[in-house]
Amino acid sequence: MGAELLRLSHRKERDKRLTTHIFLSCRILGIYNIYYTGDKDEKLEKNINKVEKNWGKCLNVQHIKKPLKLIEEKKKEGYTIVHLTMYGIPYKQKINEIKKLKNILIIIGSEKVPSEIYKLSDYNISIGNQPHSELTALVILSYELNNCKLKECSVKSLYRIIPQEKGKKVVRNDK
Amino acid sequence: MGAELLRLSHRKERDKRLTTHIFLSCRILGIYNIYYTGDKDEKLEKNINKVEKNWGKCLNVQHIKKPLKLIEEKKKEGYTIVHLTMYGIPYKQKINEIKKLKNILIIIGSEKVPSEIYKLSDYNISIGNQPHSELTALVILSYELNNCKLKECSVKSLYRIIPQEKGKKVVRNDK
Repeated sequence: MGAELLRLSHRKERDKRLTTHIFLSCRILGIYNIYYTGDKDEKLEKNINKVEKNWGKCLNVQHIKKPLKLIEEKKKEGYTIVHLTMYGIPYKQKINEIKKLKNILIIIGSEKVPSEIYKLSDYNISIGNQPHSELTALVILSYELNNCKLKECSVKSLYRIIPQEKGKKVVRNDK
Repeated sequence: MGAELLRLSHRKERDKRLTTHIFLSCRILGIYNIYYTGDKDEKLEKNINKVEKNWGKCLNVQHIKKPLKLIEEKKKEGYTIVHLTMYGIPYKQKINEIKKLKNILIIIGSEKVPSEIYKLSDYNISIGNQPHSELTALVILSYELNNCKLKECSVKSLYRIIPQEKGKKVVRNDK
């Protein structure tokens, strides 16, 4: 199972921190190809690159202008489209079906998601049928797809944490 | 197992969206008592109340000024303190121990967390030893504590979603 992410309608001011958290979280969830629409955000991309310079390069983040075109292309390539929305079918009813798929494109929105996305998606899936967070939905779906395990980016990195009972310990891998 | 949350150092401008997402996510994770420090944020509290007016009142959100005092009080009441930090011990090594506890206070930070928090915490736990998101860490820990299930707020609410394969359906419970 390979999973990619499409983050819709990023707004530079309003969403900068949340989108950063979403993209960084992908590094521990095994989602390395990320597309986003809305505002092209150089600062966001720079921040992600900065983190990856220290902690290993796993992500491929691309700003795109036409999400519907991307969805259609991905479908042609054999991807199944899984849109996360609180209006969708509870994930426990569909997770085993989704786990069997080869490649999926997960879509998460920001503000109002256009109705075309609901129509074009193969699955509209809910992680709780009440307001919560697109990041929470993404985390739970990916965690379930990985059989309740993380899937951490583990390429060569400049820094590494040595886990501690108390306090912090970071070492450089090149020293 | 009862879990409460302490969110440290909320900054009104910078964290407003993220903290909102954290608090709302607590509604589907079974964490209903929430304390936060940093800026007292009336607008944030109002937004949460507005959501809960429509979707059911589960949360009890309190701004506090002295986190160390809260931690000490909770300890006296028999709570175990679990601080989530990327510097801590990987959760898989400790989750079974933590699951056996009666009551825990989960601490998540924002910017730099003071070293006293590391010292006062009974557990410093990491969800991935690399930068990600305090929301992601909270979601994974809570989900594990609930045996890979959600624990949704299910009190009487004004609205209710009827899950759909495509599109949205919301009904009022009083009609």
